[in-house]
Order: sequence, then C-alpha cells, then structure tokens
Amino acid sequence: MEIEVKFRVDFERIREKIESLGAFLAGEELQEDIYFSLPYPRLLRVRNVSNLGKAYLTYKEIRDPGRNEEFEELEVEVSDFKTMVEILKRLGFEEDVVVRKRRLVYRLNGITFELNDVEGLGGFLDIEVISEDVEDAKRKIWEVAERLGLSENDVEPRLYRELIERLS
Amino acid sequence: MEIEVKFRVDFERIREKIESLGAFLAGEELQEDIYFSLPYPRLLRVRNVSNLGKAYLTYKEIRDPGRNEEFEELEVEVSDFKTMVEILKRLGFEEDVVVRKRRLVYRLNGITFELNDVEGLGGFLDIEVISEDVEDAKRKIWEVAERLGLSENDVEPRLYRELIERLS
Repeated sequence: MEIEVKFRVDFERIREKIESLGAFLAGEELQEDIYFSLPYPRLLRVRNVSNLGKAYLTYKEIRDPGRNEEFEELEVEVSDFKTMVEILKRLGFEEDVVVRKRRLVYRLNGITFELNDVEGLGGFLDIEVISEDVEDAKRKIWEVAERLGLSENDVEPRLYRELIERLS
Repeated sequence: MEIEVKFRVDFERIREKIESLGAFLAGEELQEDIYFSLPYPRLLRVRNVSNLGKAYLTYKEIRDPGRNEEFEELEVEVSDFKTMVEILKRLGFEEDVVVRKRRLVYRLNGITFELNDVEGLGGFLDIEVISEDVEDAKRKIWEVAERLGLSENDVEPRLYRELIERLS
C-alpha cells in the first residue's frame, strides 16, 4: 500500500528544509500524466517522464475516498508512451485530464519526498511511505512533516487531477 | 500493418528448409500468451517471454476478419507480466485463453519466419511481412512459401486462440 499526504508548499523554501534534514536527491523528473476516464475512486494514468525517456502505466484504487491518502497501486514501465495511450483509447478509455509537473524526488529513512512544481497549480510536497501498516506510515509521515514546519492547515486532500479539472 | 499467413507444418522438416534458404536465426522464445475477453475481430494479449525475461502488451485489430492475415498491431514492452495481467483484470477484462509455444524466429530479406511449436496444437509457421502494401506483402509471403513447399492446403486461417478454444 502506498500511503501519502499532500501539502501545499513554497517549492524553494521547502526544498531547502528537506535538504537540511539530510535527505538525498534521488532524481528529477519532468512528468506529463494523462488520466483516463475511470470512475472515482479508481485512477488510470499513463506517465511520460520526458527527461529520462521513460513511461509508466499506473492503476490506483483509493482506499480512503475523500481523504485520498491510501492507495493500492499497480504499475508497469512501458516502452512507449504514445503507443500505450493509443492502446487505452482503442480499448475505449477516454483521455480526461493532463497534469504536467517538474518533480524532485528525495529519500530519507524509507520516506520519499516528492516535491512538485505543477503547471497551473504551483508547489506541492507529497510525503510517501510504502507500507501495509497504515497507522505506522502516517505516524512517520507526520513526524517528518512537523520537522518541515507543515501542519494540517497545509494539507491538500484533492488529487492533482481534481485540482486541474477545477481550473478548466 | 502486419501481414501474416499461418501454415500447419512439421516443425523439424520446415526448420531445415528455412535454414537452407539462408534465413538467419534471430532468436528463440518460450511464450505464454494470455488473451483477454475482447470481441472479435479485436485482440488483447499479454505475452510473457520467459526465457528472455520480457513481457509485452499487444492490441490487434484484424482487418480481414475470417481470413486473419492482416493486422493492425499496437504493442509495448512492459516491465512485469503479472502486474500487467492484474491491471487488465482490475480494468474489467477477463482472462480468456492461454496459448503456450516455443518459437524460433528466422529472418530473410524483410520477411520474418515464426516457427512455432504450440502446446496441444503442434507445428505452425507464420510468415510475416510488415508493410502498408498488402498485395506486395502477400506476393512476397507466397513466393517464399512456395519455395518451402507450402500451398493453400497448408494454410490455417484460424487464430491460435480459436484453435485452443476448440480443444477445451
């Protein structure tokens, strides 16, 4: 299970704080995510990571609809972004929302920090732990969130695709 | 477009003939193909090539239903066979037929020879040309088929999945 809490942040300020914790920069990704029509709380996405020449097909089921912090995720890397998108279209899925972001990925003690600059939306930090123990994962996430000066007030429960949909 | 004619053959005998033409052995694959419920003339398949540690998601539309020689094919390599199968199941597709075969792939002058030993069905040779010119492709296929001693009587128009379905 993927447990993740999303915060609205100032990209550069929180970046400094994450680095001062001792987290290491695992990578930078320029992501283009195409979401396909699948009724909430399920998600179907093809991701193009253009700077790395990689693409992924991802299926998620949200285990706590509304809060959107607990996800069952199934993902495969695919050899070609455009062909994958075309296969889904031929299977009857419709392109729904496109989310574009620059992401810095940091890691520290089993915790992943996904620091995103989302086109049209601004800065967000996803703090993520992979675990079958939801409570333990959330404890770890909040422990480090507090060290970064983040609180419940900074939480953004809506999915990126929901936030982008509201813009249009 | 993928143009392909399938012949029933004696595996070892036709293998010698293909090699005597000067075709080179491009590879050997142990394939497990799972077909998913999608109404004919469309095909949705996940292929596991166990000896190479590779897997593929393939979508096909048959352009000449009944003859099954002209295919529009969309294919991506995927990083994990089981996860890809699980994603399709979660999306509502049902596992339909499993086809297992040992395949030798030979090539000669833009023609691909797929020599298959199909579990439960025996030996088959698919002669394949990728081209947008269907007539030219079929001419090339039949030219070489005749050199191999194959005729219309040896053609098997049914798909492997249809042949396997008949067994059960």
